[in-house]
Amino acid sequence: MEITTAMVKTLRERTNAGIMECKRALEEADGDLAKAAELLRQKELSKAAKKSDRVAAQGVIDAYIHSNGRYGALVELNCETDFVARTDAFRALVHDLALHIVAKNPTYISPEDISAEVMGALRETFQAEATEDGRQKPADIMEKILSGKLDKYYTDTVLLRQTFVRDEERTIQELLTEAIATLGENIVIRRFARFELGEG
Amino acid sequence: MEITTAMVKTLRERTNAGIMECKRALEEADGDLAKAAELLRQKELSKAAKKSDRVAAQGVIDAYIHSNGRYGALVELNCETDFVARTDAFRALVHDLALHIVAKNPTYISPEDISAEVMGALRETFQAEATEDGRQKPADIMEKILSGKLDKYYTDTVLLRQTFVRDEERTIQELLTEAIATLGENIVIRRFARFELGEG
Repeated sequence: MEITTAMVKTLRERTNAGIMECKRALEEADGDLAKAAELLRQKELSKAAKKSDRVAAQGVIDAYIHSNGRYGALVELNCETDFVARTDAFRALVHDLALHIVAKNPTYISPEDISAEVMGALRETFQAEATEDGRQKPADIMEKILSGKLDKYYTDTVLLRQTFVRDEERTIQELLTEAIATLGENIVIRRFARFELGEG
Repeated sequence: MEITTAMVKTLRERTNAGIMECKRALEEADGDLAKAAELLRQKELSKAAKKSDRVAAQGVIDAYIHSNGRYGALVELNCETDFVARTDAFRALVHDLALHIVAKNPTYISPEDISAEVMGALRETFQAEATEDGRQKPADIMEKILSGKLDKYYTDTVLLRQTFVRDEERTIQELLTEAIATLGENIVIRRFARFELGEG
């Protein structure tokens, strides 16, 4: 199938990718626009993954205060350059993260932040819950149950695994990966603090 | 000396105290307005000190972001009732505290927050500094030097001992005590977090 200039233009408008990238994606997708857009998205995400080793020491600190001062969060979001830190997209992202943290009250940023002690205690709790009914289960079933319970725990307490409060279709990790793809730099949630009135 | 209604009125306008309180203060000060105002201020401060045992679990969480997102602070200020928490004076105070924390970077809220280990290490450092010149000092002089160094350390690192960034004549402790006197409730800085870009 011939790739016309009009097709390239449409794909560019939809994805913001470069002319040659769009042309190549359309050729690979044999002229299917939706397929080409998905190919570009996958390519962007894999580029984003490669960026995740780069040093991110610039960025923005932002806060969100809710409910007349009953809840508040402070968050530091890092990127690689001051240039990206100044963009509206980056500033919107850090503000969304502060709002999300107030709303969804995460305990950790990533699963790696959970200490070995807590992980041990969790496994014990989940194991006890899984054998509560007194029935013997094969090891592989047991492992599936435990991993399901752990996934649920991550979704509740780990910021990167939580679904975004303003769009429950995406996790915070996905939100970040998309921002890395769009802004072209590694982006890292460095730390956060969250206060709730009277809990201190 | 006779206390006239006009004198009571003037003192009330200056201090916001009640009619009978003003009358008594003027009698005690023998009609001297400045002295009477100072008496009322002392009385208010001693009332404030008495309030400092009362439970403060209401309040406000506020944040301050500085220098385009390079610095940020989150602070929880507690009082006794939601009524006081909603006043402009209380909200101005918590905002001033967030601004102060960004500017003066305290480590602790009060000297009691410094761990025994840190205190021990501090004493050792100060002792080493004080004997650096190799000259023997009497125990009482030595104690004075150490206590001077500790005071300096408090002023640098302890929020309540720092001078207020917007009025270097007053410490944060004095600022709080005055707010307790004015607002009539115990007021407590419960906790704070302070982020500086790239330090995390």
